[in-house]
Amino acid sequence: MALQKLDGLELPAAADMHVHLRDGAMTELVTPMIRQGGVNMVYVMPNLVPPITTVRHAFDYQRRLQEIEPNVTFLMSLYLHPSITPEIVRKAKHGGVTGIKSYPHGVTTHSDQGVMSYEEFYPVFEEMEREDMVLNIHGELPPSAGEDITVLSAEEAFLPTFLDLHRRFPKLRIILEHCTSAAAIEAVKSCGPTVAATITAHHLFMIVDDWAGDPHCFCKPVAKLPSDRRALLKAAVSGDSRFFLGTDSAPHPAISKRADKYAAGVFTQPHAVGLVIDALEQGIDTGVLKADEVTEEKLERFLCINGRTFYGVEDDRKEKIVLRKSSSTIENILTSKDGSVEVVPFKRGKLTWGVEWR
Amino acid sequence: MALQKLDGLELPAAADMHVHLRDGAMTELVTPMIRQGGVNMVYVMPNLVPPITTVRHAFDYQRRLQEIEPNVTFLMSLYLHPSITPEIVRKAKHGGVTGIKSYPHGVTTHSDQGVMSYEEFYPVFEEMEREDMVLNIHGELPPSAGEDITVLSAEEAFLPTFLDLHRRFPKLRIILEHCTSAAAIEAVKSCGPTVAATITAHHLFMIVDDWAGDPHCFCKPVAKLPSDRRALLKAAVSGDSRFFLGTDSAPHPAISKRADKYAAGVFTQPHAVGLVIDALEQGIDTGVLKADEVTEEKLERFLCINGRTFYGVEDDRKEKIVLRKSSSTIENILTSKDGSVEVVPFKRGKLTWGVEWR
Repeated sequence: MALQKLDGLELPAAADMHVHLRDGAMTELVTPMIRQGGVNMVYVMPNLVPPITTVRHAFDYQRRLQEIEPNVTFLMSLYLHPSITPEIVRKAKHGGVTGIKSYPHGVTTHSDQGVMSYEEFYPVFEEMEREDMVLNIHGELPPSAGEDITVLSAEEAFLPTFLDLHRRFPKLRIILEHCTSAAAIEAVKSCGPTVAATITAHHLFMIVDDWAGDPHCFCKPVAKLPSDRRALLKAAVSGDSRFFLGTDSAPHPAISKRADKYAAGVFTQPHAVGLVIDALEQGIDTGVLKADEVTEEKLERFLCINGRTFYGVEDDRKEKIVLRKSSSTIENILTSKDGSVEVVPFKRGKLTWGVEWR
Repeated sequence: MALQKLDGLELPAAADMHVHLRDGAMTELVTPMIRQGGVNMVYVMPNLVPPITTVRHAFDYQRRLQEIEPNVTFLMSLYLHPSITPEIVRKAKHGGVTGIKSYPHGVTTHSDQGVMSYEEFYPVFEEMEREDMVLNIHGELPPSAGEDITVLSAEEAFLPTFLDLHRRFPKLRIILEHCTSAAAIEAVKSCGPTVAATITAHHLFMIVDDWAGDPHCFCKPVAKLPSDRRALLKAAVSGDSRFFLGTDSAPHPAISKRADKYAAGVFTQPHAVGLVIDALEQGIDTGVLKADEVTEEKLERFLCINGRTFYGVEDDRKEKIVLRKSSSTIENILTSKDGSVEVVPFKRGKLTWGVEWR
């Protein structure tokens, strides 16, 4: 109970700037859990099958999400793909799409249509810069990029490409999504104010040992070393406007996790805010953070303010949440209404901080 | 087919100096597969439940194994444990037990009774040195040894302890089992002739990316970086008498692999020799090895001679095997006669080199 002082703390509703809400029965299951996690605004990933590459597809999807949960703001994105042209960028911007997500080819779930090389997209990035759209980057090199690229080095090996993009398009707002390494944190800090990074709840908890033998802790990018986790924890409570929550909550059917070859993704949506507080407590308990580093102001920046400020959006609902210490037990399994989909949440069965809506 | 020249090559029967043959129905299933892999002598691990800590238990187990497969020589070991005294060492030696295996506490399958500190065993090691018994070491520090110990660093972090043991007991024959890192290979090379290391077939194939998302490729110690795999491949074909095959073939029921938290162990027994040849071919195909580094003499040393020489044993059967290029398909699943146990082998469904008995 290293953060007992936060019990009863009132904060603005959190923004989760990286979520996977999937399609079909899975969408019906996970979308209502956004608010349970203390969140009323999400940035929605476009890696459906097929990926979202048109404005129309983005808005059809947004409408479905809003029907399920009218009390969440869904910021929409397109999937960077050869069919995305400068003209589509303009149409997307004027149609209200917020950003475009780039996946490296073949690195994670539904990234088989991802990017091999950025050069062909320079005209798209120029237009995005002009239209002030956000470029979201999954920052890993694919294994094909070199014989020493592994799941452990893929993010750090991508950083020169990332820094090069920032140099070429200094006014383009770029987010290094779900950053997992001390090197990535340093790279983002070295950039100007148009660059930011999201940090997940689960990467604040985990190292490589946690996903060794546990499919529910396996995601891409993988959790790395204790030194990397320390850097993430420190960034999360730094107050630095370039770091904010993006859970990368990524539900997979339990059956595709208990498998001979299993899917990458950790599901944290129903306890997004609670898990962040749990992780900070673990950070204090293990001597990485000091209790007085975790202040109301720093928490508010990481969970509520920095993401909205970077995206230039506000919470029109002006809602508040209240933190409740270790008051929730994480579900062991979550089942869709029609029974067709089951999902195992991260830290199933464990106590977590709860969130009440004021 | 980088090693086509090996097709039809006759070699002495291989020795597999690190096998897990388990208990009950699993033993019935896997023990008959030793010879299928081209092996007629194995060194049997003692991590049953409860572990083998008495000479009687070792010989009861050996008798069961011989009943199942009379045409294999089973070299037996005890589990290093507080109940092992210098007197038991003498009894074991005179009773025909070959060695004693040390597990670090809590690192792998059935290691909950493993060693926390070596000092208490110095009198045991002295007696083993005197009696010329072999000490087999699972060389990893447990996570409790330091905040930066991970599954990736645990072996390298153990090496100072390993080197210290060799310094204290220079005549004690010590084997660093299933070594997985370039650092471990270098450490073994720096020691005198009483020190050796086993190398598995699967670690000649894999890196961290292979077990990320695949329970059947997950074992302890985990497969590490491409640079580590390169060092293992080079050691395997070096001809150096300190390196030899120990598959660490470790069957687990398929149900405990397709699980929310799954067991560590890779099952390679039925294709032990074939998989080594496959791995060397992959090493040539990826430019790590040159085809002319893989000679009959080097193969014979790694598979057949070095292990027996280190243990001071011979193949009384004087059997020969013949290699057959890519002539076997690895089973997708193996089921015990009574249907109670299923095991998924490494590289299921893939073509592998076959072995015929001459």
